[in-house]
Parts: sequence; structure tokens; C-alpha cells
Amino acid sequence: MTAVAPIFRERVVIVGGGFGGLACARDLDGADVDVLLLDARNYHLFTPLLYQVATALLDPSDIAYPFRTVFRRSPNVRFRQARVTGVDFDARRVEVAGGEPIAYDTLVLATGSGNAYFGNPALAERTIGMKSLDEALRLRNHVLSCLERAAQATDPAERSRWLTFVIVGGGPTGVEYTGALAELLGLVLGRDFPELPPGSARVVLVEGADRLLGPFHPRLGAYAADSLRSRGVEVLLSTFVREATDDAAVLASAEHGEATTIPARTIVWSAGVGPTDPLPDKEPDGAGVTRSRTRRLEVDEHLRIRPGVYAIGDVASVRSGGADTGAEELPMLSPPAMQEGRYVAGAIRSGGEPVRPFRYTDKGTMATIGRRAAVAQVGPLRVRGFLGWITWLVVHLYYLIGFRNRATVLASWGWDYLRRDRPIRLIVRSRYDPVVAALVPDDS
Amino acid sequence: MTAVAPIFRERVVIVGGGFGGLACARDLDGADVDVLLLDARNYHLFTPLLYQVATALLDPSDIAYPFRTVFRRSPNVRFRQARVTGVDFDARRVEVAGGEPIAYDTLVLATGSGNAYFGNPALAERTIGMKSLDEALRLRNHVLSCLERAAQATDPAERSRWLTFVIVGGGPTGVEYTGALAELLGLVLGRDFPELPPGSARVVLVEGADRLLGPFHPRLGAYAADSLRSRGVEVLLSTFVREATDDAAVLASAEHGEATTIPARTIVWSAGVGPTDPLPDKEPDGAGVTRSRTRRLEVDEHLRIRPGVYAIGDVASVRSGGADTGAEELPMLSPPAMQEGRYVAGAIRSGGEPVRPFRYTDKGTMATIGRRAAVAQVGPLRVRGFLGWITWLVVHLYYLIGFRNRATVLASWGWDYLRRDRPIRLIVRSRYDPVVAALVPDDS
Repeated sequence: MTAVAPIFRERVVIVGGGFGGLACARDLDGADVDVLLLDARNYHLFTPLLYQVATALLDPSDIAYPFRTVFRRSPNVRFRQARVTGVDFDARRVEVAGGEPIAYDTLVLATGSGNAYFGNPALAERTIGMKSLDEALRLRNHVLSCLERAAQATDPAERSRWLTFVIVGGGPTGVEYTGALAELLGLVLGRDFPELPPGSARVVLVEGADRLLGPFHPRLGAYAADSLRSRGVEVLLSTFVREATDDAAVLASAEHGEATTIPARTIVWSAGVGPTDPLPDKEPDGAGVTRSRTRRLEVDEHLRIRPGVYAIGDVASVRSGGADTGAEELPMLSPPAMQEGRYVAGAIRSGGEPVRPFRYTDKGTMATIGRRAAVAQVGPLRVRGFLGWITWLVVHLYYLIGFRNRATVLASWGWDYLRRDRPIRLIVRSRYDPVVAALVPDDS
Repeated sequence: MTAVAPIFRERVVIVGGGFGGLACARDLDGADVDVLLLDARNYHLFTPLLYQVATALLDPSDIAYPFRTVFRRSPNVRFRQARVTGVDFDARRVEVAGGEPIAYDTLVLATGSGNAYFGNPALAERTIGMKSLDEALRLRNHVLSCLERAAQATDPAERSRWLTFVIVGGGPTGVEYTGALAELLGLVLGRDFPELPPGSARVVLVEGADRLLGPFHPRLGAYAADSLRSRGVEVLLSTFVREATDDAAVLASAEHGEATTIPARTIVWSAGVGPTDPLPDKEPDGAGVTRSRTRRLEVDEHLRIRPGVYAIGDVASVRSGGADTGAEELPMLSPPAMQEGRYVAGAIRSGGEPVRPFRYTDKGTMATIGRRAAVAQVGPLRVRGFLGWITWLVVHLYYLIGFRNRATVLASWGWDYLRRDRPIRLIVRSRYDPVVAALVPDDS
């Protein structure tokens, strides 16, 4: 039903429908404000499972949910697919690509993060990221195509180039993708590809730090490295990617400088992530926004960058102990974003006068390494192995939005577990469509 | 397991893994020959349900099945993803793009069909076809994007351009897509798009003949037109598309010549289909192949275009009464293709000496118009309405390859039927990947 909202009601514009923006919009459902959610895409993406789309276990629709469906029964929450190009703070208007500016009374910036390449364009061009559904599908198609090419290759060196996969970045995303890729290769080599004997593929995980899973306790990082190695993955710590070409990755160790070249057709990028927002940096004249060392937006203890403008999630520099303390920035993960989103919704509901500053409650983090192996960390409690894996399954199913997705994801997982199969091994090359292109921006 | 085939065994190369090629390969599973299946894609596509992917009801993986999974347990059947560029009949070799020629003893051409535009390149450029998964996904993304654009449009004329969808061609594909699109619009307009009141969209089906569903009995065609009209579709018979631009379709009636222009951002092409094969036409010197009036390959009563070379499915001109009779060519549908594939498999198993010429057994054809409405025709028997719909469901589920697909398709259908919803309304713009591009050719 079409509910026309009364005039003179406070207008809240939320930019970005990730975990933070969505949580904020949902908590404002039914409130005495008009909410407009803007996103360049028409669906919310459950990014923690993106690597399973990239490894042909889940379909895109299993982890993506159209915003218009989410808010179908919310008379005061509207969605518009639009790319925000800027904000006029004085006029209180949001500028969108190819459309009229949108007025707001209260603005919530939840524009999230994207791949960051430390100013190395070659890396951006020669590696495949994993921040969007588009990239995950491209990665899936790419890896499956590499296997087909390897099956046809006559020159052994050429074949091994097609069968070598370098993953850059040993954070949760890199570790989870690496584990799932090793599993995928173990499932299809020899069986679906009799031309390619089991173990003929090479998976290399490269991490600049001296351990995997930075956000976790060192012991869990060590466990992740061990279980990946036990799955045949080469884990290179304290190592950086110096160069990426079409058929090789040039690595350099942190200790000794000499470079080693790994011939490979596939380089996956999960090493760098940075905030993505359309705002200009601080000018001497006082205009623009203030950023943290990581270029996230500086916010006050009520998550405001200025009166009436909030910033939450990956794009905001929120310090667990409050802005005043020198505490660490909260990691770019969904739990902080969701808590920040709900906090801002509460602040808006209370007329913009929050009773207390934002405080983050750490409910723990987790990452899966593969079949029956995962790590979970809740405060002092650390779980790993099968128990960690079960915990991971339950939590992720619980947080998956929408009944259908939960059911189909469970089905796919069950299928995968019982049949040791990867159901969705399709190489689909989608054609460019100008209308879609005008709506959905490039991810680069 | 890797079964190395003995040398000197007959080598059968099948080009194309559609209904015909797949049926042939499956019936040769376990036979005393080595079978190599070549296809430009790595999956078999259940094309009869393509329109459901295009209307956001099914996921690609529901109707596509990787060849390597199909033949996982077939020691004598191998798959290779390759695009065939030509055949050297004298050397008995198949030429493939970017690879060594492949030798054969027996060749089965099952290269299928593609969109045909009657030599009008503008139509090819300005319309969206529905012959491949790629096109179906593009169509889905395009239509959903049009709705988002319409929701943002301020100019009424512009808005109605975004909300007008012209489908060219009233054959089974055109009718089924039109019915599903009308249903999709009925489900989301007003509900998911409060900005767009129900009935604000316009769906126009254009057919050059004086009735829909040419292959069916006239009464079923009339029924299809009636039930589409009852669903709000404008059905224009004896009408042709004279011109297609970015924002309009120019139509001309068969009776009176004057043209009418329909402003629309979407023109779907299902009017022309032609055989796709890499073979040169007949030369005076005797080289090349002989084609029928529809440009399909002329075959003898044993489906051979020459000794050791068979042609089946859409690419072959098979006459129901045998090649000698003047009977009609069999329609470009899956049942003839599958029967021809099995016939050729039998002929190959019997050492290339078939006991009888090929005869087609008409098991009937069917098409669905929408919720609880379909037409089915088995010889003199004609079913329509709810009963036809049930028949359609059962038959299509039965023929869907692979357990997983059947289960998930049934789940999606049940979901759609009960919840009157379209689960998969994602606008995903997949990025170009050179490795994939090298394997998977354009559909144009």
C-alpha cells in the first residue's frame, strides 16, 4: 500500500544500505520520521558470505536481498537506487548522479569501504577484489575458466600458471576465501577434471604481517595457518606483493629484500580496504571533513561529524572507548556497523538528543577456514576447530536476512557437506547494458 | 577416476551440448567409443525456463548444469570448453578458437540456433534477446533497472518510456516471457514500488502472424492471446517491428501500412531464430554444405550431412516424414533435438549402420502463459488453463537435469506461488574478465 507521508515531518536520509545503514533504517521503521535510504545497488549484500559465491557454493540471490522487499511493509521508509556524488552541508542536500539533489534534515553516512591498493594502479588492474557481488562473480568465472584453460594447456609451464592462485591478504576475507578455494580445487580436480590430477593446483596465501587473522588472538591466527597448510595451501607471512602482472606475482619478503616471482594467472586482492565516501578533505578555509589516519571520517562521541550529520560503519572512525580516548578505531566489520546504526536510530528517535555517548559491545568475531574448521573469539573465550565451525554456521544463518535466503543457504551447505560438491560452477559472462550501467557504478 | 582410453578406439566428437548434443553424449556413455563433447560454455542450459531467470524467479544455477558434473562418472565421455570455428571434412578435424585442431572419426554437429534479425543490425543492437543465460541476466537487470529509473523519473512521458516493455515475437518464448513479465510487474508495482501505482506499466506483445503460438492449434493460440489480454497485455497481431531505437519501437501493421511509434526503453527480441554453425555454404566446386530454405543443414534420412558426419537439433533440417518426403521441417524445439540425439547415438553404437531411418514421434508441445494458465498439445489432445499448467509443471520438472536443480526450482516455484513473490530481484552488473572472454564467446 502507498502511504503518503505528511509534510513537515523530519526527513532522514541514509546513504548506504550495508550493515550499518540497514540496521539504522530498520530501527527507524515506524518512527515519526520519513526515511529515505539511498544505495548505488538495489540490494543489501551479506558480505561475510561473499567468498562462498566466489567459490561456487552459493548463488548471488542467497546472500543479496532487495531493499524494496525489506521495507515493503514500512510506510515511512523509502528506497531509491542512486549513487551519491556529494553533500551540501549548508543547504542540507545530498547530490546524486543524474538526478535532482535530495534535501535532508538529518543525514546518516554509511557509505562503507572499498578495495584500497596503496596507490598502486597496477594492483587494482591486475588483481580481482572481493568487496562486491560483481567482483565475487567475476572471481568465480575467472577461476573456473582458469581450470578449463589448464585442462586444455599442452605446455606444462603454461598449465601450472593457470593452476596457480595467489591470494594477497591474510585477514578474515583472505583466509576464508583461501580455505574455500582449496576445498573447491580438492573437490573438482581429478573428479570433474580428469585431465588435472589432484594436487596439481597451487594456492598461495600472502600476508604482510607475521601472522594471519590480525584482529584475532595470535593463537587463532597460528591455528588458521596450520589448518590452511594442512589443506595444501602455501602460507607466506611477512611477505608483500611488489608487483602484479598478467601471468605472475612478484613477492618480496619483509626480512630479506630479494624478490621471488610466482607465475600465476590469478591474483586475488584482500589486502587493502579503505573508506569510500564522496566528501572532500578538510580545507584550510574550514570546509570539508576531518579524517583519521586510516582516512575514515572523524566523529564525536555521538557519531556525528557535524550537527545533524552522522557517520557509521566502515566509513566512520569510531574509537571503542569513545572519541575522546586514544583507543583503537573499531575494525571494519559488521558488528560495530550494526551497533552504530542502531545507536543513531535511537538518537534520531529521541529527537537528536542522545542520553549517552556510543559504546561498542564486543560480541566477538569469527572466521571459517573450511570444512569443520573455524575460529571464533568472544572476549577471553576462544573457540576453534569443529566447535568453532558449528558456531560460525549458526551465527551466520541467524544473521542472514530474509527467510528464503536462510533456507536456500542451509540447503546449499547441506548439499555441499553431504555430497562434497560445488553446485554452482557456471561460467557466465554477463553483457554490458547501458541502462544498468547508468544505475550501478563500477566498483573500481 | 581417470580412465585412459585405449588407442584405436572410434573417436566421436559432439559439437554443442544443448538438448540434442547432450542426449547423444549421454546415450553414448559406456559405449565402446571415446566421446569428446565441445561447447563454448561449460554448462548445459535448460532453455525452456530461461524466461524465468529473465523475470527474476529462478537463479541461473537452477537451469544450468556443468557438463563436467553430468559426465563425472562417464569414463568414455570427456568435455572441453571450446568454440568451434570450422570443420575440415577431408582431414576429419574440428578447428577450435585458440587451440589445436581436434581429430574425429565420427562428428555430430549440434550447434543449435541463435537470434536472427533478418539482416537488420539495428534490431540486433537495440533489442535484448533471450537465447542464452547471459541475455536472460541482462534482460533481468535491464527491466529491474527500468523500474528504478521510472520510480525516479519526474517527467510523466519519460516515466512511461521506462515502464513500457515491447516484446517482439509471439512464439512460445515470447508468450511465456510476456506472461511472466506481466506477472512480475503485477507483483512489484504498488507493493515494492509505491511510487509506481499498479497498472502504470505497459506490456506490448507484437506478432507478425495473425495468431500467437504458431506451432500450436489455432484455438490454443487464441486462448493464449485472451489470457494475456486478461492480464493487461496489449497483443498486436499481424504487426511487424519496422524500427527500434533507444527510446521507441516503430510498428507497422500488415494490413494498412502506416507506422505507429511506441515510446519504450525496452524491446525484447524473440521473433527470429536461425541455425548457428561455422560451416561455409555450398560452393560451385562442391565444397561446403547444403542448406534448407531456413538455412538449416540438409541431412539424409539417417541425419547425416555426409559419411561420418551427423547434424541434429536446431541446426539440422529434419523432415518429420524423412528427408525424401516434402514434409515440414521439425520445429526448433527440444523434443526433436533429443530424439535425434538418441537416434544418432544408437546409430554410432551399431557401428554407423542404422537399421531404420529417423522418424520423429511427436510427444506434444506446451507453453505456459502464467499463474495457473498454460497450453499443452499432444497429438489431437489439447489441454489448457489450470490442467495445462499442472501438466507443464510436471513435465518441466521431470526434464530438469540433476536433483539439486529440480529441488531448488520446485522450492522457488512453491515460494512464488504461495507468496506471490519474485525472490531474485537483483541488479548485478558483472565485470568483463579477459580470461572468461577468451573462453566464452559473445552471443551476438
